Amino acid sequence: MASTPSVPLLKDELDIVIPTIRNLDFLEMWRPFFEKYHLIIVQDGDPTKVIKVPECFDYELHNRNDINRILGPKASCISFKDSACRCFGYMVSKKKYIYTIDDDCFVAKDPTGKDINALEQHIKNLLSPSSPFFFNTLYDPYREGADFVRGYPFSLREGVPTAVSHGLWLNIPDYDAPTQLVKPLERNTRYVDAVMTIPKGTLFPMCGMNLAFNREIIGPAMYFGLMGDGQPIGRYDDMWAGWCIKVICDHLGLGVKTGLPYIWHSKASNPFVNLKKEYKGIYWQEELIPFFQSATLPKDCTTVQKCYIELSKQVKAKLGKVDDYFIKLADAMVTWIEAWDELNPSAEKSTELPNGAAAAAAAAAAK
Amino acid sequence: MASTPSVPLLKDELDIVIPTIRNLDFLEMWRPFFEKYHLIIVQDGDPTKVIKVPECFDYELHNRNDINRILGPKASCISFKDSACRCFGYMVSKKKYIYTIDDDCFVAKDPTGKDINALEQHIKNLLSPSSPFFFNTLYDPYREGADFVRGYPFSLREGVPTAVSHGLWLNIPDYDAPTQLVKPLERNTRYVDAVMTIPKGTLFPMCGMNLAFNREIIGPAMYFGLMGDGQPIGRYDDMWAGWCIKVICDHLGLGVKTGLPYIWHSKASNPFVNLKKEYKGIYWQEELIPFFQSATLPKDCTTVQKCYIELSKQVKAKLGKVDDYFIKLADAMVTWIEAWDELNPSAEKSTELPNGAAAAAAAAAAK
Repeated sequence: MASTPSVPLLKDELDIVIPTIRNLDFLEMWRPFFEKYHLIIVQDGDPTKVIKVPECFDYELHNRNDINRILGPKASCISFKDSACRCFGYMVSKKKYIYTIDDDCFVAKDPTGKDINALEQHIKNLLSPSSPFFFNTLYDPYREGADFVRGYPFSLREGVPTAVSHGLWLNIPDYDAPTQLVKPLERNTRYVDAVMTIPKGTLFPMCGMNLAFNREIIGPAMYFGLMGDGQPIGRYDDMWAGWCIKVICDHLGLGVKTGLPYIWHSKASNPFVNLKKEYKGIYWQEELIPFFQSATLPKDCTTVQKCYIELSKQVKAKLGKVDDYFIKLADAMVTWIEAWDELNPSAEKSTELPNGAAAAAAAAAAK
Repeated sequence: MASTPSVPLLKDELDIVIPTIRNLDFLEMWRPFFEKYHLIIVQDGDPTKVIKVPECFDYELHNRNDINRILGPKASCISFKDSACRCFGYMVSKKKYIYTIDDDCFVAKDPTGKDINALEQHIKNLLSPSSPFFFNTLYDPYREGADFVRGYPFSLREGVPTAVSHGLWLNIPDYDAPTQLVKPLERNTRYVDAVMTIPKGTLFPMCGMNLAFNREIIGPAMYFGLMGDGQPIGRYDDMWAGWCIKVICDHLGLGVKTGLPYIWHSKASNPFVNLKKEYKGIYWQEELIPFFQSATLPKDCTTVQKCYIELSKQVKAKLGKVDDYFIKLADAMVTWIEAWDELNPSAEKSTELPNGAAAAAAAAAAK
């Protein structure tokens, strides 16, 4: 029996965002865990195609026509023919938390054979603090049966709010094309029963396959960039977002956790196709990583939006030399923030009359 | 059945260092894994007490009289009535690798019920590289069945030499006195099947209970400080060493791993006694951690010894203000290096005629 809490955690405060190009039969397996939540489906590719969603799920679906209508000219910041389009779902959500999952990800089993409620674990991760300033050797000190070990400074034990929970994958690991080609048969069978905070100042490769975050505190930085159709690069959407959010979380004193929960990743994508999408990223990243490792934000960047705009300026100034693509990407980062703010009037603004355009867009988005 | 490789790994290149005040019956359980290795037993407390070692083990034993005779006035840097005395064993070893373990640590079982060969896992950790510059979400990429994930820069995949392997503990976790007092019944039952590199720039609480290191590349920094008899503090010996080695490993481009292997830690020490030993450390560490977090070493510190001497100067200059104890400790750090160099003439020097005093001391040390 799968363990579903009788009242699902954060039922009315979390949206599940799924980018897809096909019927969502995979949701059948997730029904015990997802059925009480609202789904935001972002349909990629041909908007005339009809995507079937299993019965009784509460969902809204946005195809490219919807994105264009809602965002108008700002729709240019949303990628097409790439799962990067999922970030449109983050933008139109009205909830505090987001969980995003790929449609080739199924329910994994823990070592005792029990179905893993990935969403429940993500929520636990997000609702407990992070400890980015000092490493705890027994992993997440806030988990049951664990604590801070001897030598952990007491002043750091309250932790900081957790902004992101990065989950992992059993079966097909998230390898790049060269590694896929070299190790076509490698499967991840190791269940590591740990959650941990990625230390401050350390970058990590954030995978968008099984990811949750607090939209209220980090949402505007969760932009998946310009990928896919018309762009020189693919499969770096989540990586880009990961580098940006980590720099901003470090600056704002927010935490990023990785580890549990696992999902079952069912099929490896084609390594030859992947290589074509990735190859520019593979050499660009050798310059991107040092850029993000040394990026610092000024003190007056006190909101995610301010941090993100500042980062876009640094991208343009420093990475624009690497390739013109980064100038375009830097502009798209600004467009993204403008679109985000339009659809998400701030707490102060929301006490005023809602902005007409934004309200209309929001109404159109909610189906 | 326990898994012992027919020829134990690094049999002639590793010493096992055990600090103790009692008969070493605990070695019986370790016999299948330790019997081919040389043991260095550092007897703490009353030197007239006879410590029994189970039959057929190859060992040398040093009590306080031996330490005083071998080091002369420099013996002042070796703690008395505290397990910090173990670092004397690191100094008199002539091997490339050290494994140190407490005498209340027994063989743990993995989740399949198999005895864990902790030493073998430590050796695997030390012989494979570390990846301190970027976080790998599937943990140690050099383990079988794992690799670097998508988005991990290719230029960083060769890794760096691993200097330290920090193992963990099932059953009694390594908690400080306040946590012991608050959670007297907490036991660590979670077997986390992971090894990982602690990222560059991140400090961690290094526990000396189950620890291995490459003596050749980090040994001179593995000083466990002044603790116990005549000192205002205890139970911070391994923490002190951990902060120092991490700063130096980060500077020299060496790696520190933590995670597997587990040992079975059999008994909790008395939390009231521990509180007395720890209480100054508990408040001092609030200043020590920022000190080590911001410590930087100049470029001309190209050897562990030079790094350590430089660090001792910074300790004296900056922590001397916290308490006079740190002035004494800074001096002891220098004495430690002098003693180390005397007992361990460098590779160049060893081609010359051996220094008379050092050779005599080394001969006296080898029983």
